Amino acid sequence: MAHGRTNFSSHEFPMASGVSPFSYRTNSGYQRRVVRATKQLMHAVVMEKLEVENGSIFQITDMGCSIGPNTFISVKNIVESVELKFQSINTHKKHIQVLFNDHAYNDFNTLFASLPSDKSYYAHAAIGSFYDRVFPDKSIHIVNCSYGLHFLSRVPNNVENRKSLAWNKGKVYYSHSKKEVISEYSKQYKKDMECFLKCRAQEVVPGGLVFITVPARPNKTPHSKVIYNMLAEILGSCFLHLVKQLRNLLGDIEEEEVDTFNIPVYITSPIEVEEAIKRNGSFSIEKIEILSKETSPINGLTAKDASVHIRAITEGLIEEKFGTKILDKLFQLHEQKLEDAYLDLISGEAISLFIALKRKPN
Amino acid sequence: MAHGRTNFSSHEFPMASGVSPFSYRTNSGYQRRVVRATKQLMHAVVMEKLEVENGSIFQITDMGCSIGPNTFISVKNIVESVELKFQSINTHKKHIQVLFNDHAYNDFNTLFASLPSDKSYYAHAAIGSFYDRVFPDKSIHIVNCSYGLHFLSRVPNNVENRKSLAWNKGKVYYSHSKKEVISEYSKQYKKDMECFLKCRAQEVVPGGLVFITVPARPNKTPHSKVIYNMLAEILGSCFLHLVKQLRNLLGDIEEEEVDTFNIPVYITSPIEVEEAIKRNGSFSIEKIEILSKETSPINGLTAKDASVHIRAITEGLIEEKFGTKILDKLFQLHEQKLEDAYLDLISGEAISLFIALKRKPN
Repeated sequence: MAHGRTNFSSHEFPMASGVSPFSYRTNSGYQRRVVRATKQLMHAVVMEKLEVENGSIFQITDMGCSIGPNTFISVKNIVESVELKFQSINTHKKHIQVLFNDHAYNDFNTLFASLPSDKSYYAHAAIGSFYDRVFPDKSIHIVNCSYGLHFLSRVPNNVENRKSLAWNKGKVYYSHSKKEVISEYSKQYKKDMECFLKCRAQEVVPGGLVFITVPARPNKTPHSKVIYNMLAEILGSCFLHLVKQLRNLLGDIEEEEVDTFNIPVYITSPIEVEEAIKRNGSFSIEKIEILSKETSPINGLTAKDASVHIRAITEGLIEEKFGTKILDKLFQLHEQKLEDAYLDLISGEAISLFIALKRKPN
Repeated sequence: MAHGRTNFSSHEFPMASGVSPFSYRTNSGYQRRVVRATKQLMHAVVMEKLEVENGSIFQITDMGCSIGPNTFISVKNIVESVELKFQSINTHKKHIQVLFNDHAYNDFNTLFASLPSDKSYYAHAAIGSFYDRVFPDKSIHIVNCSYGLHFLSRVPNNVENRKSLAWNKGKVYYSHSKKEVISEYSKQYKKDMECFLKCRAQEVVPGGLVFITVPARPNKTPHSKVIYNMLAEILGSCFLHLVKQLRNLLGDIEEEEVDTFNIPVYITSPIEVEEAIKRNGSFSIEKIEILSKETSPINGLTAKDASVHIRAITEGLIEEKFGTKILDKLFQLHEQKLEDAYLDLISGEAISLFIALKRKPN
């Protein structure tokens, strides 16, 4: 065991791999818009806030990197800013190492095969959940985590426990469920953020930076009015529809299987993120910014686009539980239901949140 | 481009992947015997020769790691020795990082999926050819390269050039060819070792160690009398056989395709390795040892075993040039020819060479 690991086992959440027509790689344009929107913000923080220490090696990690190309764009933005920072303070030459981090079951072969040939850094991969320790103490200078922290480490136990008040019967997601379910998801999010920040506090050098970009809901907006959640809720209703209407066709999917399937995603709010950072206490908040409407998840997308996008993110999880044969039928229905609900969706809320943290001196 | 890279492009040489019945993973028992034989040797060198510097991070790389499980055994042996060394000198706690290195097209997903759960180190992957720079200056404490350095970075140009004296007509390997071919392979080996040692000299900290284990031939033994080479030569004769006898069956394999296919492997000798290290000048030789007969590549193997073993190593290369459909036919013939030649093979020579180097102070 690596030093300082926490004890729970993280849920693996692989994006659809490189060979699928619904691969995350070719269906992550929305995340790319978000990456672009954060470029200037990250640049300003690096120039103004990064404290460069002695030593010839500078380590950057992109946590939850998935399989590109977004990770390469994020990393390029950060590396360029860091190089300008070095020039501006006439520091001696540093070697930049970039550690691409994700779960062991991420499609690293696809990632490596598409590494940019003109990169100015040494490329490594670091295996493990970002809710756990991945790096030695004080070894990392900049952490980036873009669109990763809405994935929980696991579905909260009680949500899948028939005897619990928080049993999420007939649902696969929390946002439109009873308050006990929402509360369990919220508690799990708090625990996970505590692990993330505690582990990063150990790994990041004093003066080093952590960038977080995450889908979010405006403070006080109920979970059920958030576009991301409405998209997932519709997916959940498709499961129930399939079970009830098409049981003869599919045969082996029982209602109970849907009851014990839940998507481990939670949409946070600015206030929840700030509270988590303050509870942890190791980081100062250098910037917290709500990204513009251009990053809305359904901006300019057809129902079909939106459905394919959701498929790219959830396919692995669904396949693990129900096998592959359900996928086409499910997402056909999902697309159709999205079309019906499109006006509702547009009236929903969605923001992306950019946060820049700096590791305080010990 | 990373700093200090050399300019040529290395030939990718992937082992058969995790899903193949001929996968390297399930057919690398011979290499495992070699790994076991080196355990005590590495342990002694670590305890007696490793110079531990200040700093809390200790980095080990296994170069040309392939996809396990041998790499995990090697790494475990080294990590255990390093931990004992730390205890013996009462050094303060160090975090051990292990960087598994191989080409981008190595099956890293299989590697990561089988990482030992009880490991005491942080596991990373570092992408790139070991004939090139992979790590920042003075960042690595121990390099291990087990059964990797007999793979050349490329087939020498002239060997595939119809107008050259070294044109390797009718052959796919160098050992039983004319002296001009052998000379080109030997020159390429010298160049490659120069690159390997030059890059490692930049990356390894002063007092750090490099372990090399490599199949070899006794000094003065001709290339044609070495078992590894005899196995490859028989494979080459099978290609020719297929072209000549079975052209109707296979259709599209022409003699010229065989003429322009060559296996980029060279079997070195103790004296050649020593010369390369002395020419480089950055390392002292702490140990150079010929491993016992137990590591002979055909010891205890049937012809079928030996053929499957050769297939696991060469399948990727052959497939790249000729496609998959030739493989079964080729190795059926190979097994049969190995059986016929078994008495000859046993009379051949084969050693494994273990070398421990220490980076001199600058």
